[in-house]
Amino acid sequence: MSIKNALPPSLKLLLEKGAAQYQSGISVDCVILGFHEQQLKILLLKIDTVNKWALPGGFIKKTEPIEAAAYRVLQERTGVVKDIFLQQFHVFGAPDRADASIHQKRYQSFGVKIPKDNWLIQRFITIGFYALVDFDKVKAQLSTTATDCEWVNIEQLEALMMDHENIVHKALETLRTQLAYLPIGKNLLPKKFTMPELQKLYETILNQKLDRRNFQRKLLSFGILNRLTETKKGGAHKAAYLYTFNEKRYQKALKEGLYGSW
Amino acid sequence: MSIKNALPPSLKLLLEKGAAQYQSGISVDCVILGFHEQQLKILLLKIDTVNKWALPGGFIKKTEPIEAAAYRVLQERTGVVKDIFLQQFHVFGAPDRADASIHQKRYQSFGVKIPKDNWLIQRFITIGFYALVDFDKVKAQLSTTATDCEWVNIEQLEALMMDHENIVHKALETLRTQLAYLPIGKNLLPKKFTMPELQKLYETILNQKLDRRNFQRKLLSFGILNRLTETKKGGAHKAAYLYTFNEKRYQKALKEGLYGSW
Repeated sequence: MSIKNALPPSLKLLLEKGAAQYQSGISVDCVILGFHEQQLKILLLKIDTVNKWALPGGFIKKTEPIEAAAYRVLQERTGVVKDIFLQQFHVFGAPDRADASIHQKRYQSFGVKIPKDNWLIQRFITIGFYALVDFDKVKAQLSTTATDCEWVNIEQLEALMMDHENIVHKALETLRTQLAYLPIGKNLLPKKFTMPELQKLYETILNQKLDRRNFQRKLLSFGILNRLTETKKGGAHKAAYLYTFNEKRYQKALKEGLYGSW
Repeated sequence: MSIKNALPPSLKLLLEKGAAQYQSGISVDCVILGFHEQQLKILLLKIDTVNKWALPGGFIKKTEPIEAAAYRVLQERTGVVKDIFLQQFHVFGAPDRADASIHQKRYQSFGVKIPKDNWLIQRFITIGFYALVDFDKVKAQLSTTATDCEWVNIEQLEALMMDHENIVHKALETLRTQLAYLPIGKNLLPKKFTMPELQKLYETILNQKLDRRNFQRKLLSFGILNRLTETKKGGAHKAAYLYTFNEKRYQKALKEGLYGSW
């Protein structure tokens, strides 16, 4: 007979009081993106009982707006309390998407069996949010159900838990169509950036190689960038000029869509 | 003492068996759009107990994917069973958005008081879908809780029930950013259409006047339209050429975004 650890208070509370505290059958999941060393990265948790990477997620309190629930998850996992660009993007509602065995195994490991009619053992519809954060400001935090927490290069994504891979792909698809309408570059890049960095970000989101000259000409034609006199030295390459976004023009251009008017 | 009508079976069922049949605290609402006589129109129901126009909506069966729930609502309200272009666009989750008094008044009118712990009396998060339908194929159908069902010109929208106005505006905002990526023109226009009809549709969705020459030049530059030899006579104006979408090129262009590549 193995000796089980005592059930942690947070898990006990979730099991016994969750149904009274949270909306039934609905959750939020967050695709948290940051840009670092020319890579678009996603913040993932390694979930204890499945040993797979997963999106940080959570439940919605009975009195809480859904955006506030997503914000709460973000704050808990990143330590960042402001300047998070957060967008709801899609709901995932396949009847069989939730995997109750993940909860069951977890409680089992403490010798606790979840009653069949417990609120955790049911269909969960999840609302997907994506967040663009300043990579350098994030201090990734473990959750009680995770054994690891890491920034993973989006180009090297492994199989994720449940339908989380699908959620990530849908987030990227959404970013692609929103590149022209939302300040995505501004929220992912440091205040000062080089043209190659901006291009790499666009290439990663669009999942395609872009022509350097065309890209530069196009982006400059929007009139949304200020070129600084400073340069940044990068490895074998010659020093590249640093740019900042011209905030006023950027906001104005986004209103019309960066491609220009119809 | 007034003599009440008997509670209709469908309302009795909803009250007594709804909690067992449907997901708790979550609904779908549909912004159903059609284009007719150069007007973008929305299909609305006049709700019995509030005497206000509202979006057709419904609940999600326990075993039903969320898209299927929206599709079911659409079929019930429009009679159209295929070729509906349906897109989920946003979740509305303010804790106080649902108005339980609408249900209470309805049951009250049959002399029935809803118990406080009944599933109808709770917070409802709703998933917004928009549907683009062929106006001529729709036979608008009343629901059991509506006294009227009508196509309303989107430019003459009155105050709607609960947060439904907000839902409509968010749908239009979404259409605006998706004009370049989804076959919105194709799904709203008849098979053959004139350039002024296409322009009017774009103007309505974008909520702005467009220059006739620029619009025509731009749309033709995408290479997605076939000009027919047929013309259409319209009132005082000279006959306008009819166009169809070149399906293959249209789909290809949408993949990149109609504005052209980055």
